[in-house]
Amino acid sequence: MHIIITGGAGFLGARLAAKLLAQGTLAGQPISHVTSLDLAPCPIDDERIDSVVGDISDPSVIERAFREDTIAVCHLAAIVSSHAEAEFDEGMQVNFDATRSLLEACRHRGDHIRFLFSSSLAVFGPGMPSPLNEQTAPQPRSSYGTQKAMSELLVNDYSRRGFIDGRICRLPTIVVRPGRPNRAASSFASSIIREPLGGEEAICPIDPEFAIWICSPETIINNLAHALSLDTERMEVCRTINLPGMSIEVREMIESLERVAGNDASARIRYERDPQIEAIVYSWAPLFDNRYALSLGFDVDENFDDIVRAHQHHMASQ
Amino acid sequence: MHIIITGGAGFLGARLAAKLLAQGTLAGQPISHVTSLDLAPCPIDDERIDSVVGDISDPSVIERAFREDTIAVCHLAAIVSSHAEAEFDEGMQVNFDATRSLLEACRHRGDHIRFLFSSSLAVFGPGMPSPLNEQTAPQPRSSYGTQKAMSELLVNDYSRRGFIDGRICRLPTIVVRPGRPNRAASSFASSIIREPLGGEEAICPIDPEFAIWICSPETIINNLAHALSLDTERMEVCRTINLPGMSIEVREMIESLERVAGNDASARIRYERDPQIEAIVYSWAPLFDNRYALSLGFDVDENFDDIVRAHQHHMASQ
Repeated sequence: MHIIITGGAGFLGARLAAKLLAQGTLAGQPISHVTSLDLAPCPIDDERIDSVVGDISDPSVIERAFREDTIAVCHLAAIVSSHAEAEFDEGMQVNFDATRSLLEACRHRGDHIRFLFSSSLAVFGPGMPSPLNEQTAPQPRSSYGTQKAMSELLVNDYSRRGFIDGRICRLPTIVVRPGRPNRAASSFASSIIREPLGGEEAICPIDPEFAIWICSPETIINNLAHALSLDTERMEVCRTINLPGMSIEVREMIESLERVAGNDASARIRYERDPQIEAIVYSWAPLFDNRYALSLGFDVDENFDDIVRAHQHHMASQ
Repeated sequence: MHIIITGGAGFLGARLAAKLLAQGTLAGQPISHVTSLDLAPCPIDDERIDSVVGDISDPSVIERAFREDTIAVCHLAAIVSSHAEAEFDEGMQVNFDATRSLLEACRHRGDHIRFLFSSSLAVFGPGMPSPLNEQTAPQPRSSYGTQKAMSELLVNDYSRRGFIDGRICRLPTIVVRPGRPNRAASSFASSIIREPLGGEEAICPIDPEFAIWICSPETIINNLAHALSLDTERMEVCRTINLPGMSIEVREMIESLERVAGNDASARIRYERDPQIEAIVYSWAPLFDNRYALSLGFDVDENFDDIVRAHQHHMASQ
């Protein structure tokens, strides 16, 4: 059986492809093939992975990714938050219209395709009762969060109508992402660990006393694979899950870096506050109630020192 | 100055046109003209009202409604709940895509147009903490509610970005609507009062012990006009308001009918439960917290007997 991963060239998409192939089955059926659908080819060298290279906001590109035996779509592709804020129309096309086109493609195949949608804590705005849970209203303060929240509603309605078998994961900020900084407002949260560990300077653009809601790459990949495997009969009618995370102040993250890699590492961080990034990051809730997700068997990180060490290990293995 | 009302041929749209012209000004500026945009002409005979007759899901029809001096759009046009449930694609086009086209038309005029969007309690699903308030997550159990909730998110983002000056009113079920039954799942709530008062039979398709969240036509019109006049500086960042309503069991509504019009009237109601209507109506929350709306100066009904009497009076004046 065949699985499509949009954003398969990206860090999460490529790791999810590898994870699903290693897992070998989905709902008791063998996974023989994964198609990555992204602007670039999937970087993983495995003959069971092929790449459709193109823009997901073009429905004909989407059609090329489907096969007769497609049983699942993992929709991870998106324009990140700062980019969607700067380019409203492009954000709508990629983050919302393309999601709708993908849902339509699944609906018209009529196979009740499993549809995993990666949403974000950015659907929530400030001023809500804490901790947040699945019953808290999304009141996004960014166009990215708006587009994700609109897509969530659509995935839920398509699921309710039986067009697809959807499941929606709202991702915490992922720390430590490998690679280079990107246009996500949250990019600094990985930079302040990753760059100092690599001997480079990093900029912290927000008040270090501010807490953020995070999850490690390993836990996210495990949780996305779990979400795809989950029997949605176990879920409440609404298919939306806030993936578990941990709340940590930026200052505490830097203290972990110091414990793991010494003062030389933390000395590579410069503090230069950026009002545009602050405006977006401060609008995100720093504390969620993990209980619903944990009851469904999702994982959670316990200790930030371990996350820093895991990234060190990842760097050493490259 | 000029105001556009979509759905101006409908019961709410026509009354709102008359109300705004009687009010005479909006934010200190004289209202000289109202354009109704609907599939039929506005039924009100007033030289200050003209009608653009056409389908709002056609952007060129939308363009014809704007004038140089347009300062506000009241977007009331929609396909009702049972209709949107039966015809998914048509519902998406009229309830969501047309809203987006209207927002785009306002954005590209660049005049920070006031945009009043009529949403519905149908954005909420069952199983939420009671009473509901503005911080409760919309988890609609109908495509109509989904399309309204998606449109709300867009109106909020367009407002946040300064493309428009939006305000969103979630309407309770309106009782007593004049006219004939329609395809709204809530249509029975008016029928069981209106038809017996007119000497006709009506069908009650749900369990009479079930409570619904209602508002009279008079109060709704006052509240929509108030929402359009409101200085949005007074609102929280999110522009969404649950309009005030009263919670009443269907049985209590029928007791009011009996008190006002006698046993002959209530004897005209037949009880024939309809599972499709029940499924939609039971998914709606029967109790909201009115405090936020009342703090902004919105009105609320206090007594259902008065609502029955007001409809009797309305019938006598026709």
